[in-house]
Amino acid sequence: MTERLVVIGGDAAGMSAASQARRRRAADDLEIVAFERGRHTSYSACGIPYWIGGDTTGPDALIARTAGEHRERGIDLRLGTEVVDIDTAAGRVRNRDAEGREQWTGYDHLVVATGAIPVRPAVPGIDAPGVHGVQTLDDGERVLSTLERPGVRRAVVVGGGYIGVEMAEALLKHGLDVTLVDRAEQPMSTLDPDMGRLVRRAIEGLGVRVVSGAAVSAVLTGDDGRVRAVATDDAEFPADIVILGVGVRPGTALARDAGLPLGAHGGLLTDQAMRVRGHERIWAGGDCVEVRNLVSGDLQHIALGTHANKHGRIIGTNIGGGYATFPGVVGTAVSKVCDVEIARTGLKESHARRAGLEYVTAVIESTSRAGYYPQAAPMTVKMLAERGTGRLLGLQIVGREGAAKRVDVGAVALTARLTVDQMTGLDLGYAPPFSPVWDPVLVAARKAADAVAADIRAR
Amino acid sequence: MTERLVVIGGDAAGMSAASQARRRRAADDLEIVAFERGRHTSYSACGIPYWIGGDTTGPDALIARTAGEHRERGIDLRLGTEVVDIDTAAGRVRNRDAEGREQWTGYDHLVVATGAIPVRPAVPGIDAPGVHGVQTLDDGERVLSTLERPGVRRAVVVGGGYIGVEMAEALLKHGLDVTLVDRAEQPMSTLDPDMGRLVRRAIEGLGVRVVSGAAVSAVLTGDDGRVRAVATDDAEFPADIVILGVGVRPGTALARDAGLPLGAHGGLLTDQAMRVRGHERIWAGGDCVEVRNLVSGDLQHIALGTHANKHGRIIGTNIGGGYATFPGVVGTAVSKVCDVEIARTGLKESHARRAGLEYVTAVIESTSRAGYYPQAAPMTVKMLAERGTGRLLGLQIVGREGAAKRVDVGAVALTARLTVDQMTGLDLGYAPPFSPVWDPVLVAARKAADAVAADIRAR
Repeated sequence: MTERLVVIGGDAAGMSAASQARRRRAADDLEIVAFERGRHTSYSACGIPYWIGGDTTGPDALIARTAGEHRERGIDLRLGTEVVDIDTAAGRVRNRDAEGREQWTGYDHLVVATGAIPVRPAVPGIDAPGVHGVQTLDDGERVLSTLERPGVRRAVVVGGGYIGVEMAEALLKHGLDVTLVDRAEQPMSTLDPDMGRLVRRAIEGLGVRVVSGAAVSAVLTGDDGRVRAVATDDAEFPADIVILGVGVRPGTALARDAGLPLGAHGGLLTDQAMRVRGHERIWAGGDCVEVRNLVSGDLQHIALGTHANKHGRIIGTNIGGGYATFPGVVGTAVSKVCDVEIARTGLKESHARRAGLEYVTAVIESTSRAGYYPQAAPMTVKMLAERGTGRLLGLQIVGREGAAKRVDVGAVALTARLTVDQMTGLDLGYAPPFSPVWDPVLVAARKAADAVAADIRAR
Repeated sequence: MTERLVVIGGDAAGMSAASQARRRRAADDLEIVAFERGRHTSYSACGIPYWIGGDTTGPDALIARTAGEHRERGIDLRLGTEVVDIDTAAGRVRNRDAEGREQWTGYDHLVVATGAIPVRPAVPGIDAPGVHGVQTLDDGERVLSTLERPGVRRAVVVGGGYIGVEMAEALLKHGLDVTLVDRAEQPMSTLDPDMGRLVRRAIEGLGVRVVSGAAVSAVLTGDDGRVRAVATDDAEFPADIVILGVGVRPGTALARDAGLPLGAHGGLLTDQAMRVRGHERIWAGGDCVEVRNLVSGDLQHIALGTHANKHGRIIGTNIGGGYATFPGVVGTAVSKVCDVEIARTGLKESHARRAGLEYVTAVIESTSRAGYYPQAAPMTVKMLAERGTGRLLGLQIVGREGAAKRVDVGAVALTARLTVDQMTGLDLGYAPPFSPVWDPVLVAARKAADAVAADIRAR
């Protein structure tokens, strides 16, 4: 008998699940229906700042696979259709199309891939014209349309995380005066403050005004109702456009209403096969779930396309009769703002402390290439290692070209639970255009190993 | 009582050992004497092609630490002084200075760091003026001086390995007609032939004429005694300059004469602390030793500055009263020729077979960045995984900017003995400027894992 897979959410996780299930099971064995409330599927939200900044065209270029392509592959994709109810007892969802027509659709397998919702600070004026999130392709269109308005020359970016700094770069490219207003002590609070300070210095060097430790208290509007400034407790920052980059939270209202289990961060809880806990036929992945951090052991909410794609593929494999699992993450993230590259993996200091892990740190300066090679660019590498055992706990890098992807060495080392002492012997690629004879990660590992030994001696 | 450390060879391994021992033991505790028969210390041989190509200045820029700097740090460095005899029974070496004066110098610890010797094919004319190796700074000076001669416009590079292809690039930059004559089936025989073919195509695209499967039978000279052509069995290639890049062998004649143990590749055999086997007070490191390949279990001879530096540091730590070991290598190497990046780690197919390891392979095409991001460059990734277990055995990458250093993920995975299936879950850095949402290494791991599974099913 033909089974039916219902997918809620037509982006990375949902459509990867659908595609992978389709690859493994033919249409007469598995019918696949996917509901997406928006107008687009399978797009790269991570690409939106680069589209706005003019590095890439959009929005079509950001769409990995169109609705038509999905349909050609035998996925009954319904755009503009929202799922408003999940009836887990009966195994059906209530879907509502753009005209408000509702129907119940039964499922044998359900994939919840409802993504994340941008946080909007609950302050007066936040919904004024000219205040934009940057999560959907429609957001991108709206930002570009605001930027085309006459007299738009001052931008305030609220939030100093990945989206915030990437949008700061995009707005600089439009020639705007950019102010970054951030609640944290330093931008990029996924890094330790000492490393965040390097990012701050770098983006200030690009001409961005950085205001840290400042919470937005209101968005002020002019006579035309449009945004004119962003207010904090202490100051007002004139703004013709405001970009919100204050993070996202799991989009799990629907799941919560259906009684599906949520974690402390509001994300769905799944097992390693990405099955929702306690629900044999319901799967979840992408920005709406919590994932296990393999270093801290904690559950976290991390909205990142690469995880969503992995989740989707794993879910599709399992629904398709195969077997795959997602063991967890180590918290790797890379970004850039103009030519400044930023990377982190594992735990930062506060996270390690919260996990009850004691650590030593090492910070070193090195270069991306042999010192005598052209364009050898400086980079700062910070490493955290567990006291006593010397196990790598975290790696942070701030540098220029050639810096960020070095963090992958740390990501693999964390997965394999290597010690920093073991890391000093790693056979990393060396040639003058690619690395000093001691790769910066090895130099950091050496210093971290020394710190571990010194700490043991000092006990 | 003050001990004496004698170091033979003033380059990476020897001077790293000396420096590290000095850091740990004061001059009244350890006297350090280092003999170097050449005129320079601690220089980057790997940088010579880039100096010749004009990417960097030379030779001073290639010297990491001058003789004067070493002496200031309390190392009695004697340039132009050759060690001609090691008397292991008495614990002394016979050294001969530039004027031919000899003396015996006793040691409590001896470090043999005599490096490697470029292979010179034993063919007529090989010593003619205009035929150059590229191992020492003096070689670099001589190549540049030949290039300055009037009428030098055709170059033949003998050997298609790292030095060969890097020198091909350097000579192109001087505007020469470059022919690469190589005995192997494809250039870069550290890669499998299918990947070497990509390198061949790329360097042919740069304007280099590549002649494979051709052994040099003679170097032909003109009336002036200088090189005029390189002959193979089938053909003659006109040449105003000839560069030898046919590899190196361990420089162990001195060690052999002293009865120190050599392996099948002619390199010194050491334990993991880099102590010469059977000799409590003698250490060896760098290009004159054999190293354990952790994947195949074999001993290999790999001349690479990054290993030499590690060896030296380990030896110096151990002589200095600490404890450090060199567990082995996984065979990582990266290189580039113009904008073509080449990387490998682990075993290539023929090496795996020789080690008795059966494997499956996967080859994929991907890009260095998200497809929509500017300068997303194509790359080809090949992976070898062990049959049955799925353990990663090797990784090869040929691409453009952003390709080569991705091999480090494989280097760490090989060290940690990860399976390709485990690798599919690696939390590698993702953002559009740095990677597609599935990093090329992950795509290759997925395909390799599929190949492992298919092979198991097909048994």
